[in-house]
Amino acid sequence: MKPVLTTQPLAAVAPGPSAAPPVRRIIKLGGAAVTVKSQLETLRPEVLDSLVRTLATTSGLPEAEASTSGAGGTVLVHGAGSFGHFPASEYGVVRGPISDPRVRRGFTLSRASVTKLNGLVVGALVAAGVPAVGLSPLGLYHTCNKQVAVSGGASASALLAAGLLPVLHGDCVLDTALGCTVLSGDTLVRDLAERLRPQYVVFLTNVPGVYDRPPEEAGARLLRRIMVTPDGGWRVAEVEGGSDGGDSGGGDSSVRMSVDAHDATGGIALKVEEAAAVARMGIPVLIAQAGSEHGDAACRLGPQVAATAAGGEGGGEGEGGGVAAASGSPPATWRGTLVVLEGC
Amino acid sequence: MKPVLTTQPLAAVAPGPSAAPPVRRIIKLGGAAVTVKSQLETLRPEVLDSLVRTLATTSGLPEAEASTSGAGGTVLVHGAGSFGHFPASEYGVVRGPISDPRVRRGFTLSRASVTKLNGLVVGALVAAGVPAVGLSPLGLYHTCNKQVAVSGGASASALLAAGLLPVLHGDCVLDTALGCTVLSGDTLVRDLAERLRPQYVVFLTNVPGVYDRPPEEAGARLLRRIMVTPDGGWRVAEVEGGSDGGDSGGGDSSVRMSVDAHDATGGIALKVEEAAAVARMGIPVLIAQAGSEHGDAACRLGPQVAATAAGGEGGGEGEGGGVAAASGSPPATWRGTLVVLEGC
Repeated sequence: MKPVLTTQPLAAVAPGPSAAPPVRRIIKLGGAAVTVKSQLETLRPEVLDSLVRTLATTSGLPEAEASTSGAGGTVLVHGAGSFGHFPASEYGVVRGPISDPRVRRGFTLSRASVTKLNGLVVGALVAAGVPAVGLSPLGLYHTCNKQVAVSGGASASALLAAGLLPVLHGDCVLDTALGCTVLSGDTLVRDLAERLRPQYVVFLTNVPGVYDRPPEEAGARLLRRIMVTPDGGWRVAEVEGGSDGGDSGGGDSSVRMSVDAHDATGGIALKVEEAAAVARMGIPVLIAQAGSEHGDAACRLGPQVAATAAGGEGGGEGEGGGVAAASGSPPATWRGTLVVLEGC
Repeated sequence: MKPVLTTQPLAAVAPGPSAAPPVRRIIKLGGAAVTVKSQLETLRPEVLDSLVRTLATTSGLPEAEASTSGAGGTVLVHGAGSFGHFPASEYGVVRGPISDPRVRRGFTLSRASVTKLNGLVVGALVAAGVPAVGLSPLGLYHTCNKQVAVSGGASASALLAAGLLPVLHGDCVLDTALGCTVLSGDTLVRDLAERLRPQYVVFLTNVPGVYDRPPEEAGARLLRRIMVTPDGGWRVAEVEGGSDGGDSGGGDSSVRMSVDAHDATGGIALKVEEAAAVARMGIPVLIAQAGSEHGDAACRLGPQVAATAAGGEGGGEGEGGGVAAASGSPPATWRGTLVVLEGC
């Protein structure tokens, strides 16, 4: 039997516009950043610890007070990485149908794995005093041909209003056309940004930002500022090492954007496309390395941090970045990619 | 800021009556049965294993096929036991308000703990090949003064239709009047029974059924059959050891019903009241010991199993019951409590 769903959003439980709490930021913690993607269910505890420190000491303002005082709360979304991706790929969960016993098996294996990761992420946050609660998309989100048809944004909003920090994750969901699919964390971020209108969005990845080609290739350059236009175009406005990438109308064909070549739920194109879609809403997007001082500063300061990049020539540290302690002051020169709407 | 919620159910995503999949049973696994309630986060793995065997070998029919073939699927609800109850009690989560930082802290600690138990339950089921998926109430369910105001029943129904076995649990939820509260697994069962209309409901507890007084007291007798009436009354129709408890109109005052004296989310009265409320819908309820052959038989056979009790005089085994292997044949004499609507 095929699941019967409508595509009507859960407006019934959505707070009205005036009641919606202010949302400061949505942070996406990449699956490739927080796990060792090649090793089954292997966490990178130092990356998680770094984010936990950032959230526990955010500008000295506890999340709950920030959320309820008007400063705005935080939503965290994490990917699956090596929790969930292996069975999801092996059993073809992204294509469905759920009526196929093999796909259904993959669905349950993937979900059991990614909810395990969610438990680890939430557990670490709660242990540090952050008012985090897991909010697993299955049952809240439904898709139609991989596009969000029913959103769980209203539930996230209600939790924010209560001073809580919702932690969502890329998940297996039911899909009215395919039976089931994988809803990526990046797509979740776009949906939540549209509904919650945060002040900014941060993607924490396993490399320092978006490059003009795979970052492991010689001569790869970090794109420091990408301008998107309302019509769907974009151009590289600033590249690390000076001289911008030139104007490029609907996209720079000399640029093979690379954030994380190993992402299994849509790869580079999807991630950058989702980031551009968010920026096109007028919400600045920062892409930086998880576990680095740059990632930490992006989470704490939002687009303000990129002011240090505007005049900077080259980063002060090597490619690796590594895990820096979450410090109170921003790095002298921020390394990462800022994606903003032209004119903003 | 108080969460703003309406009390309108999620009808938008609910399958219509004709599309709703047949539901065979709702099984409630008591927190006191599956955990050692006095020891923090301590599972009783042998009790969980017994239920997993029951669900993995249900009448030889895999759950998914049962759900999609018309035989009907299964919903599992578990309590929190020593996962969640300690912080929930210590921090007063049941009373709210969530705006109190201390209550909010208890809320996040309780949730992190009970979702850990959910992960263990779902993980064990999935490892045995059961198509189980966790469905955590927070975000799906909202209450008003502890009563269900927005139900997650539609989501459970959609998962059933997809051949999956939803596993819910007693949880902390947002409450429009109190800010937050604890939604007990027993209340969840009543809500799901009302919306999904299963063929029967089984409560698996840590004692063999409902007693006429605390089961550890000398002379405590197992109530084998309780008849409820549409007006809210009930009577004991059969007691273990022969001679019934007599007619008792609106409730037998000589009976101090006892299922589990240590339950922290409402205790005996709530549990039996929720069971009676389900029976009043015309849905038979069986209460039996988790991990015993009687609990296993109740899950597999539903009210049919109680036919063996009708003529039986006394159980064939001692009070303890213990963990029996999930066998294919029912016990010669079933020990447990059947709660049914008068005339059914």
